[in-house]
Amino acid sequence: MAETSCFHNLKEGGIPRQLAEGLSARVFPGEHLMLSVVEIQPGSVSPVHSHANEQWGVCLEGEWIRIQDGVEHPVKAGDFWQTPPHVPHGGRTLDERCVVLDIFAPPREEYRQGGTGLGAATVVG
Amino acid sequence: MAETSCFHNLKEGGIPRQLAEGLSARVFPGEHLMLSVVEIQPGSVSPVHSHANEQWGVCLEGEWIRIQDGVEHPVKAGDFWQTPPHVPHGGRTLDERCVVLDIFAPPREEYRQGGTGLGAATVVG
Repeated sequence: MAETSCFHNLKEGGIPRQLAEGLSARVFPGEHLMLSVVEIQPGSVSPVHSHANEQWGVCLEGEWIRIQDGVEHPVKAGDFWQTPPHVPHGGRTLDERCVVLDIFAPPREEYRQGGTGLGAATVVG
Repeated sequence: MAETSCFHNLKEGGIPRQLAEGLSARVFPGEHLMLSVVEIQPGSVSPVHSHANEQWGVCLEGEWIRIQDGVEHPVKAGDFWQTPPHVPHGGRTLDERCVVLDIFAPPREEYRQGGTGLGAATVVG
């Protein structure tokens, strides 16, 4: 029943990764793309970084400030965005918790295993 | 300000495509992946088809029956699933409307332009 394992729910499962303090991810790897459900606690910072992988993000719950290419974009549930390859990005929450679905293509290979940190990304600041 | 156009909302925008009767999509193409917000009316059928592109789906609103590899999977908002390359898939709604976020890698190249139908997919039945 390997096929059954293709079905998931956003609230559970995945490979755990602590991206930064207050940012915990559950990673679902595929062949050509990878999903990651990221829970961001209030008052947390995602350090600005970049990588060759294209990334899209969908704000599923709450709100935060997406920092991309040096510009701050306030986003809320229902907003989504593309981060082209190599574009520096990060973000920060204010008083509210936020849940973001991150999508990578190709997959972040180092995220196929649980761990901490931003993998092979280049941290800008 | 090309960078600004990287930001969207699930409720609007995108390249329109009528996938089938009762299934309308708004497509957001990237370089290595593509997002498509699909609104499915009650009592509608997505014909079973397959393609080489890996696909993931996230049920954002409502519920439907996902048909994948010959098995019917009832899914609801918050459920998501991987459809590996070449796996036949489709679905049908019952009495409720459904909104699904489809994610393709690599992109469905024929979906970069508006239109009707399932593009280069092989319709199974």
